[in-house]
Amino acid sequence: MVALAQAERPLFTGIDIGGTSIKIGLVDMAGRTLAYRTVATEPRAGYAAALQRMYSAIGGIIDALGLTLHDIKRIGMGIPGMINAKHGELYGAHNLPTWDNTPVAVLLEEHIGIPVTLVNDANAAAYGEFWIGRGREHHSLALVTLGTGVGGGIVVDDQLIGGAHDFGGEVGHLIINANDDSRWCGCGQRGHLEAYCSATAVKNRLNEALEAGSESSLRQLRNNGHEVTPLDVAAAASAGDPLAHELVMETARYLGIGVTNILHMIDPEILLIGGAMTFGGDEQPLGREFINAVRHEVRRRAMPIQSKHAVIEFATLGGAAGYIGAAGIARMAERKVAQT
Amino acid sequence: MVALAQAERPLFTGIDIGGTSIKIGLVDMAGRTLAYRTVATEPRAGYAAALQRMYSAIGGIIDALGLTLHDIKRIGMGIPGMINAKHGELYGAHNLPTWDNTPVAVLLEEHIGIPVTLVNDANAAAYGEFWIGRGREHHSLALVTLGTGVGGGIVVDDQLIGGAHDFGGEVGHLIINANDDSRWCGCGQRGHLEAYCSATAVKNRLNEALEAGSESSLRQLRNNGHEVTPLDVAAAASAGDPLAHELVMETARYLGIGVTNILHMIDPEILLIGGAMTFGGDEQPLGREFINAVRHEVRRRAMPIQSKHAVIEFATLGGAAGYIGAAGIARMAERKVAQT
Repeated sequence: MVALAQAERPLFTGIDIGGTSIKIGLVDMAGRTLAYRTVATEPRAGYAAALQRMYSAIGGIIDALGLTLHDIKRIGMGIPGMINAKHGELYGAHNLPTWDNTPVAVLLEEHIGIPVTLVNDANAAAYGEFWIGRGREHHSLALVTLGTGVGGGIVVDDQLIGGAHDFGGEVGHLIINANDDSRWCGCGQRGHLEAYCSATAVKNRLNEALEAGSESSLRQLRNNGHEVTPLDVAAAASAGDPLAHELVMETARYLGIGVTNILHMIDPEILLIGGAMTFGGDEQPLGREFINAVRHEVRRRAMPIQSKHAVIEFATLGGAAGYIGAAGIARMAERKVAQT
Repeated sequence: MVALAQAERPLFTGIDIGGTSIKIGLVDMAGRTLAYRTVATEPRAGYAAALQRMYSAIGGIIDALGLTLHDIKRIGMGIPGMINAKHGELYGAHNLPTWDNTPVAVLLEEHIGIPVTLVNDANAAAYGEFWIGRGREHHSLALVTLGTGVGGGIVVDDQLIGGAHDFGGEVGHLIINANDDSRWCGCGQRGHLEAYCSATAVKNRLNEALEAGSESSLRQLRNNGHEVTPLDVAAAASAGDPLAHELVMETARYLGIGVTNILHMIDPEILLIGGAMTFGGDEQPLGREFINAVRHEVRRRAMPIQSKHAVIEFATLGGAAGYIGAAGIARMAERKVAQT
């Protein structure tokens, strides 16, 4: 956080819409957060109520700082789905079932009187890491986010690769197993990276192993009616449960394949792993073991140059990457408007 | 070709080094060729003799046009291997075994007194297609080249993605089958796109099918001691040979998987298929059937936006893409020098 007196103007608002909550931050030209709020998404209640909550939260932030809406140059809105950035429209998002085909950015813009730029949420997170996170000293990076699904974003030559149809960086849907018996992805296709190393995939692989008779402390948890999550898997792995540990390491090996593909196509200066499922990240022995296993798989699989030089690290902004990056995208959009 | 009187100055020389021959073109600011020569690579005779042949050919071109070396602003050199563009050095190229760890660009530059920019040959071809080929009206493209190996190049926001280690666009080494029993690639790894849809892969799959007892007109050809090439496969497929036809269609399906991965990561405006093995391209029924099969596989495999909007076409510059693109890279390098 930075105090208003120290902030570099103009200011931007970054919004990161998730399936459960919406993060909203007021961010300065240097990527520093001045104020931050979250509101509920309540996706089944519809987009209009959510837009009203965003509007109120932004109002609350500026009131608390003694600012007005005129102090916000532009808003960046990150959203977990397929978008049309040019038209400010969301085509569809798995976690926002009532929001399909809604011009969310246009609606907020009309309501609030500030230009709104729409961006895919994982692309926003990648841009945030590039702007002020682990990638701040680099000109190119790729981010892979592990969560319910697998997302990503790519920055090359200091620019986000948004894509011709706002579909750039969808690394979760890289096909890593073209066989007809490969795993099903949440998108309805087979063999995608997401089908092997998302949180959903970890749960599926756990259930398969338990049904096949593998011994694990997680069996009792599941038999007690608890829906086992990757956090439970991580705890069990850290406590020495062999099945849980193998599930984490297997996830790393699959991720290493996806990472290798990204390196072979983009060759970024740094590749970051983020999202909700990082097994503790750099702070935990399991997280460090996880990322080392990813690096090992990449060294084993990649062409010599990548095998030798690839830099693979955890992202550092955590859950803030999305709204900070969305604010950064707003800043870039404003710069482009100023240039034309 | 354009006449010297119509050429837009400054002029650039593009060099495309292959395993058999080296193409050299004098190209103007608009990407038009003024003059063109080829010389033999003779890779086993070493790089020094080849550099001398390039030097002589460039001298021959300018003499014929009444120009001097001062009329060439910069040279772009495309080379089929791993390079260090900054140091003008070739680490290694499969087809140029005696050229390993040679500062080829530096050596030519010192000999000829004109700055030389080094680029990967497939990246050069992609840039050529972007500059004046099938991608000329687009701001982003990906090129996949099918030949002995599978190469590629990516242009985004009018810039080639060279990569942090000059390793961008190596789409032939995308892992499309992570299983331990997947096919071997020429690079020594398994499961790469190249292992499934290069000319080498077509030959391997043909031999496997013949050994498994498949009926084909190609069996006689092979039994007569002829080394069957993809050209033979294409001729047999066009003549109605079912095995040959299936080999071509199978190649298209595998290529469709690789293309889908490129679309999911980069989302370019257009994706081009080029190289020596295009089964006749747009000019031949088999080529059209081939690219339609690629499109079909992409529609089947890709996420909805890509499935609906992806534009997949044959490249149009043929064997000229490499030297034209290398000249274009020289032009861009010169522009960057001028800006600093």
